Amino acid sequence: MSAFVWPTRVYWEDTDGGGVVYYANYLRFLERARTEWLRAHGCSQSELAVDPGVLFSVVEVNIRYRRPARLDDLLLISSVPTQDGAACMIFKQRMLHGSETGELLAEAEVRIACVSASTFKPRRLPPALLREFS
Amino acid sequence: MSAFVWPTRVYWEDTDGGGVVYYANYLRFLERARTEWLRAHGCSQSELAVDPGVLFSVVEVNIRYRRPARLDDLLLISSVPTQDGAACMIFKQRMLHGSETGELLAEAEVRIACVSASTFKPRRLPPALLREFS
Amino acid sequence: MSAFVWPTRVYWEDTDGGGVVYYANYLRFLERARTEWLRAHGCSQSELAVDPGVLFSVVEVNIRYRRPARLDDLLLISSVPTQDGAACMIFKQRMLHGSETGELLAEAEVRIACVSASTFKPRRLPPALLREFS
Amino acid sequence: MSAFVWPTRVYWEDTDGGGVVYYANYLRFLERARTEWLRAHGCSQSELAVDPGVLFSVVEVNIRYRRPARLDDLLLISSVPTQDGAACMIFKQRMLHGSETGELLAEAEVRIACVSASTFKPRRLPPALLREFS
Repeated sequence: MSAFVWPTRVYWEDTDGGGVVYYANYLRFLERARTEWLRAHGCSQSELAVDPGVLFSVVEVNIRYRRPARLDDLLLISSVPTQDGAACMIFKQRMLHGSETGELLAEAEVRIACVSASTFKPRRLPPALLREFS
Repeated sequence: MSAFVWPTRVYWEDTDGGGVVYYANYLRFLERARTEWLRAHGCSQSELAVDPGVLFSVVEVNIRYRRPARLDDLLLISSVPTQDGAACMIFKQRMLHGSETGELLAEAEVRIACVSASTFKPRRLPPALLREFS
Repeated sequence: MSAFVWPTRVYWEDTDGGGVVYYANYLRFLERARTEWLRAHGCSQSELAVDPGVLFSVVEVNIRYRRPARLDDLLLISSVPTQDGAACMIFKQRMLHGSETGELLAEAEVRIACVSASTFKPRRLPPALLREFS
Repeated sequence: MSAFVWPTRVYWEDTDGGGVVYYANYLRFLERARTEWLRAHGCSQSELAVDPGVLFSVVEVNIRYRRPARLDDLLLISSVPTQDGAACMIFKQRMLHGSETGELLAEAEVRIACVSASTFKPRRLPPALLREFS
């Protein structure tokens, strides 16, 4: 599967007193990109939460920070998901600087479980995603 | 009613690239202090959300930023609530620096409505609060 | 001056346990729109912080929350700035739902001072902005 | 070295529309606990940023989310740091529910580099920390 690339911009809210993006906020950027991958593949999370009543819950994150992102930077986030059993997905994600040099800023693997919105117990991935991975 | 004072600390997450607390994060600090006022007066918001199924929704905020707060600062937030009709409260809040000089960092008035957790329609304030204001 | 309109999307990071956008996060959206207005008018804040060494610091916010924004909503933020003395601007901002009905979600007035990046003392607005307002 | 335990409380700002703490916000809690470990061991980060001009920059995070944390929960975060070369530390951190059962909510390993506040190049750990680890 080829990578899905989503752009996002760094604003003041994302930076910290060190003058760079706060480390937890990289996870917000990665989640925006996964949300847009899902949307591009026919999965509206607000609709899935109502019918069939499932959420995607992050189970594990491994992230390596390579270079700092800074105010006003345009970031490009690539996402390559794979299925991991009936209820899980693993997203390999890379964050690149949106300049000509396209430096690698961060790399991450994010494991995500499909769970019941009410009980947080594992549930099968929605049919639209199972088709995507088959 | 005398002021209820709640302390909170500034961490990296709260600062921005200007080296001071990001302006939206003052509203997070103010909300922590209101939550602790409610807790001190017998109102657990997570319980109220289940029974009788109400939330407190912010309707209006007027905030004046006097001096910047910085990393590692201890902040003291005073909160003086008053009732405003059957379904609303107004909190007057001040944020002071937790040093001997106790400089004023920000002042705010926050209007809050008690609403149904499902429909967001106005609901009467819980009895524990109505007693508090009577 | 006609309104400058900037779109932004609601992600999980913006919502809270009430199922709607957390009240402080509206201020993040408003700041993104102001940043894009500045960028569209030739003001890069990361460059201004270096030369002539100024930042824009929020002095006062008055915001009225009309209706809740929710996960996946597309928001449209209009911004109309006016000059307020040599060192300040006032932005009138409105947040609309990006659907056909375009419901008003929030209205705000945000007063912003141009300050020295090192001392936070007031400084004249940059020439590019003074020309904009003349 | 025995574990250093720091408590923190879940507020509305930390939750998301799924009714639980947003996954990126666990990293904010972990950073608060590391900051307090540093403070307890004589390291004020705001002072270190001025003299000798160093910051602690997160290089890698591996985090496993075990159970969701929810509004009003009291969390206990244990931190066990070890030295990793002249310029790095690794913190093993666990987040437990602050109830009698003390359920494990998350586990993380966080690798942190001491860097120059201006260039982000690696710098030796401050003497107070080197003594701590010797």
